[in-house]
Amino acid sequence: MATEGVDRRAKYQRIADTLRDAIHAGDYAPGDRLPGENDLMATHGVARMTARQALGLLQSEGIAESRKGAGVFVRSFRPLRRRGVERLSRERWGAGLSVWSADIGDRTLVVDQLSVAEEPAAEGVARVLGIGTGEAVCVRRRRFVLDGKPVLLAVSSLPAALVGGSAITERDTGPGGTYARLAELGFAPAHFREEVRSRMPSQDETGRLGLAPGTPVVLVCRTAFAADGRVVEVNEMTLDSASYVLEYDFDA
Amino acid sequence: MATEGVDRRAKYQRIADTLRDAIHAGDYAPGDRLPGENDLMATHGVARMTARQALGLLQSEGIAESRKGAGVFVRSFRPLRRRGVERLSRERWGAGLSVWSADIGDRTLVVDQLSVAEEPAAEGVARVLGIGTGEAVCVRRRRFVLDGKPVLLAVSSLPAALVGGSAITERDTGPGGTYARLAELGFAPAHFREEVRSRMPSQDETGRLGLAPGTPVVLVCRTAFAADGRVVEVNEMTLDSASYVLEYDFDA
Repeated sequence: MATEGVDRRAKYQRIADTLRDAIHAGDYAPGDRLPGENDLMATHGVARMTARQALGLLQSEGIAESRKGAGVFVRSFRPLRRRGVERLSRERWGAGLSVWSADIGDRTLVVDQLSVAEEPAAEGVARVLGIGTGEAVCVRRRRFVLDGKPVLLAVSSLPAALVGGSAITERDTGPGGTYARLAELGFAPAHFREEVRSRMPSQDETGRLGLAPGTPVVLVCRTAFAADGRVVEVNEMTLDSASYVLEYDFDA
Repeated sequence: MATEGVDRRAKYQRIADTLRDAIHAGDYAPGDRLPGENDLMATHGVARMTARQALGLLQSEGIAESRKGAGVFVRSFRPLRRRGVERLSRERWGAGLSVWSADIGDRTLVVDQLSVAEEPAAEGVARVLGIGTGEAVCVRRRRFVLDGKPVLLAVSSLPAALVGGSAITERDTGPGGTYARLAELGFAPAHFREEVRSRMPSQDETGRLGLAPGTPVVLVCRTAFAADGRVVEVNEMTLDSASYVLEYDFDA
């Protein structure tokens, strides 16, 4: 499977490989401008189309991005760190030890779009909530923005029979939010399960998250369990993969 | 932000949207063949290029895939479920409750490529291991195959000063593998941290994992800590996103 013997790579791939290696070696830092088509044509003695393909490949891989009229730049990866497990693991096990740099600081997510509705439960959500397909759920849809850039779409579903009449069905859920209200109803989340996968975004997701070309989304489905094992919430989250590192801590 | 008023979508987008809706509604199941270019041209009264673009869009989104000479098919998503936290959470909190179907069963990962080498540590890995850049690490590179399809590349780095002379530096680490050997050395992993992100694959990753077009990779960086807080292993994993759902359980 390894690349051996004769170099079978197309010219544009070889140029892209050279640029990629230079990026990984730090010759081009995040935010730096890469050589333009004219530079590549001169350096490698290739046609404009070949130079363009090489730069296009790096963009499709998500490691470079084109800025109108300015050229192609090394994409910055300066994501948020999202901790699945809050607790005290950082104090016990040390902070800042990461292969990937990511902000842990005080950047704040803001909700810029919010809707609340009672809807019939779709099959998958109904199964997890342990209710019948089509039974009423309270659905809270939110978009979160960081520094003006949308980074997260969240669709939280809770059984209407459980939360009907509470502030969870209002736009403003009050201090402590949904989980504080669930606690008042006697269903404080005691356990969480997060399932994580990734895929390319739909056109709608690309638009709503303002995704650059070649940027996948990360899907996180969070299930919240009350102490008696009852599922009280399913939260389907869609994350801009260029904006997030997810972190999970657990003991052996 | 929502699509309102005049429909600004290009024709190929509208056709793709129609097909996508039909897929989500279950009119086309995973593995089903989608209408071909000729069908779409007749049904929607469009040129071949438009029909092709519509099918191309669904492929770039990763929800359909082309099979040579046979047409375009709805992609199956039948991933492996990988549990970050083994323990007993399933017994306590119930199994099979998931929005996404995924195999939990007895499919077995097989290592089909393996290399072990002593190398100077790269900067990021050295920082996490708490050693100097360029200090020797034992690097174990493995490719894992499921049902003949490569699904995971893993690069495990351990300080050579810690594991030198042990079976960890051999191809066959013996019963229980690396973690059992670490335990014998007095450095049994007591805690894990996993960091997860996603991006489009490099050409090399596409080749080694046999990825279909429009398939991102999921990157999992696992750090293993001994009981005294010392980092004993950094394992950088690259996963075929079409083959995996990651699962993490934790208490509130």
